[in-house]
Amino acid sequence: MKTETTFKPGLEGVIAAETAISLLDTEQEKIVIKGHDLIELSKHNDYLDIVHLLLENKLPSKEEKAALEEKLKERYQVPSAIIEILRLLPEHTHPMDGMRTGLSALAGYDEHLLDRSLAVNKDRAYDLLAKLPAITVNSYRILNKQEPVLPRKDLSYSANFLYMITGEVPTAQRAEIFDRSLLLYSEHEMPNSTFTARVIASTQSDLFGALTGAVASLKGHLHGGANEAVMYMLNEVDSVEGFEELLMKKLHNKEKIMGFGHRVYMKKMDPRALMMKQSLKKLCETKGDFQLLEMCEAGEEVMRREKELYPNLDYYAAPVYWLLGIPIELYTPIFFSARTVGLSAHVIEQHQNNRLFRPRVHYIGEKY
Amino acid sequence: MKTETTFKPGLEGVIAAETAISLLDTEQEKIVIKGHDLIELSKHNDYLDIVHLLLENKLPSKEEKAALEEKLKERYQVPSAIIEILRLLPEHTHPMDGMRTGLSALAGYDEHLLDRSLAVNKDRAYDLLAKLPAITVNSYRILNKQEPVLPRKDLSYSANFLYMITGEVPTAQRAEIFDRSLLLYSEHEMPNSTFTARVIASTQSDLFGALTGAVASLKGHLHGGANEAVMYMLNEVDSVEGFEELLMKKLHNKEKIMGFGHRVYMKKMDPRALMMKQSLKKLCETKGDFQLLEMCEAGEEVMRREKELYPNLDYYAAPVYWLLGIPIELYTPIFFSARTVGLSAHVIEQHQNNRLFRPRVHYIGEKY
Ligand SMILES: CC(C)(COP(=O)(O)OP(=O)(O)OC[C@H]1O[C@@H](n2cnc3c(N)ncnc32)[C@H](O)[C@@H]1OP(=O)(O)O)[C@@H](O)C(=O)NCCC(=O)NCCS
Ligand SMILES: CC(C)(COP(=O)(O)OP(=O)(O)OC[C@H]1O[C@@H](n2cnc3c(N)ncnc32)[C@H](O)[C@@H]1OP(=O)(O)O)[C@@H](O)C(=O)NCCC(=O)NCCS
Repeated sequence: MKTETTFKPGLEGVIAAETAISLLDTEQEKIVIKGHDLIELSKHNDYLDIVHLLLENKLPSKEEKAALEEKLKERYQVPSAIIEILRLLPEHTHPMDGMRTGLSALAGYDEHLLDRSLAVNKDRAYDLLAKLPAITVNSYRILNKQEPVLPRKDLSYSANFLYMITGEVPTAQRAEIFDRSLLLYSEHEMPNSTFTARVIASTQSDLFGALTGAVASLKGHLHGGANEAVMYMLNEVDSVEGFEELLMKKLHNKEKIMGFGHRVYMKKMDPRALMMKQSLKKLCETKGDFQLLEMCEAGEEVMRREKELYPNLDYYAAPVYWLLGIPIELYTPIFFSARTVGLSAHVIEQHQNNRLFRPRVHYIGEKY
Repeated sequence: MKTETTFKPGLEGVIAAETAISLLDTEQEKIVIKGHDLIELSKHNDYLDIVHLLLENKLPSKEEKAALEEKLKERYQVPSAIIEILRLLPEHTHPMDGMRTGLSALAGYDEHLLDRSLAVNKDRAYDLLAKLPAITVNSYRILNKQEPVLPRKDLSYSANFLYMITGEVPTAQRAEIFDRSLLLYSEHEMPNSTFTARVIASTQSDLFGALTGAVASLKGHLHGGANEAVMYMLNEVDSVEGFEELLMKKLHNKEKIMGFGHRVYMKKMDPRALMMKQSLKKLCETKGDFQLLEMCEAGEEVMRREKELYPNLDYYAAPVYWLLGIPIELYTPIFFSARTVGLSAHVIEQHQNNRLFRPRVHYIGEKY
């Protein structure tokens, strides 16, 4: 068998899969999701519309959407043993790791775990979408010695998610902004976590396993973990000048600045970041305090000037989540929860048309 | 940015990493591990030698090996909360999923989780090597309503592992055969689980996360899960003729036969399978009953004749584990436990010289 002779570190530009799910079309500057433009969707649709689009291949009618929301609500309840498991985790556990453990344990409740058919996989995905907000939030709450919170069925899917996080029923504006963040996080072609999930699924392993690996991937700072890292950075200082200085210092030390850059967008701003920036502006207006926005804009300017690098979604998601009153440690778990639908669509597609991922290496070790 | 135009399903032949750890040299028919031939090592060395080779870059002196064994024994003890977590898992949980959950939970005990330096990563790997046998075995025992078993420090590392599994101190022959199986499973270039671990690690995620994903990958039947699938298949029948008929029936139904084929060896027998077959022969001699060997040889012949396919390691590991008295559900967890050292070496290498894995796709979905 012949092997490729060129090695592309990080598989940059290498085609890893054929997919009918999504594409980053850098020429037309579009994030295509099943034929739709994600940015357009974010203006006219909400998270559950995208869930329907990703799992049922079309935007839902009003009735279909109501049925979907009802289906999720029926499955909100998390087995009590999962909550007990979260209680047993050592107190310094990161909520991403708590979530990973809870998700991993959930596999044992699936009575058809070996069934990877389309129908069963889809049903499994809905079940996870229903339960992940509660697992996400409670893994944080329990690790912080708070009592677990129960979902409220009288709120919409995303309003309930935000309510569980903050303990307060959100205003319409806040619920909408949070929902849009979920939508923008829902699916994004072949980032590391999606790739991880497909690689795992290709051994014929199940959706739980694939998602467990994806949580682990998303936790890394070069990926989803960037959103929390951005907020810690913003919190290190308390002025526009302070933030500019911090960034300059980091650049001087050759540190990577979290929230900037992207393998695929390269020299352009992530269009999702632009949408999120608008949300940040709205929240600042309501608060009557624009400091966070001004700091972020100044940071944007520094990075453009010094490195020609542009913000990615995580850069603006962080201050938005901060103003929504979300604990920093939940930023990445929320990203995962929102991405579960995209990940599930990819695992389903992989199971439907599978070939084991098994690449090769260039050996540069001891001679023999 | 330009993207590759050729798409290789399953990344067949694509170079995914530069590595100084191992290579399947198909031309010289060697499995190279840090400059050594794995098959030669399996004749003259034992599992802990390979552990030292993979993590310290050289075979150990007598003193170094004793120190290594001592270090592992000092760290045998698994936190009691992990055992409690395993007790909370629903009873139909597969031990691979139990192991994944336990491993995921263990992350919370690591006080330096963000430290990915060589020294800390290596220390972490030793800790996992020390604890995984007990987690592996107890996840099975607890799910089967047996009391957890404690490791015995008076036995060697692998004799203790086998003792914990069977409840009996193994004979020298059995301990040696089990140890060799661990050695043969220890490292094998870039199979799906190793690739999964490196992909996850490339986001700067930690060793626990990378290994959690690798358990999920290894569980699949196209990968590590094949060893248990082989044994279920052998147990479906009770004669050589019965096994031949079963294989012919499966081939007729276009089923894939577990334990045969390999992306990289192609038309040749996996040399590890040959070593394992010798172990099977020894166990049959001691037992004075050659039926299992005869069935396997007949199966080998059927597959060669009908499909020109040859056995892989899992095909002969299964009957060896059966004769060692190991419960079938533990076959894949044992594989994982043995592979932990190879996986750790790869994660360490990835962390030392990292670039985020982030490939692209061919979009074949709805027009836009
Ligand atoms: C996202 C990311 C991993 C993509 O990276 P990539 O395609 O692998 O690019 P590289 O890391 O090879 O970077 C290419 C060059 O740009 C620089 N660069 C990229 N992102 C940078 C950042 N955020 N800050 C400073 N420099 C950066 C690199 O240092 C490198 O410069 P060099 O060639 O002089 O060494 C990278 O931009 C990054 O680490 N960003 C910060 C983390 C983040 O926000 N992640 C969320 C992504 S949604
Ligand atoms: C290991 C394995 C996944 C490698 O597969 P791969 O490189 O992706 O090869 P493919 O699955 O594309 O198989 C190539 C051809 O050989 C056939 N083939 C491969 N392994 C086969 C098997 N075990 N039984 C029957 N046919 C097999 C395939 O059906 C295919 O035939 P086709 O071209 O007529 O469709 C594959 O051999 C397999 O599934 N084996 C069984 C599982 C197993 O033992 N895994 C442990 C590996 S250590």
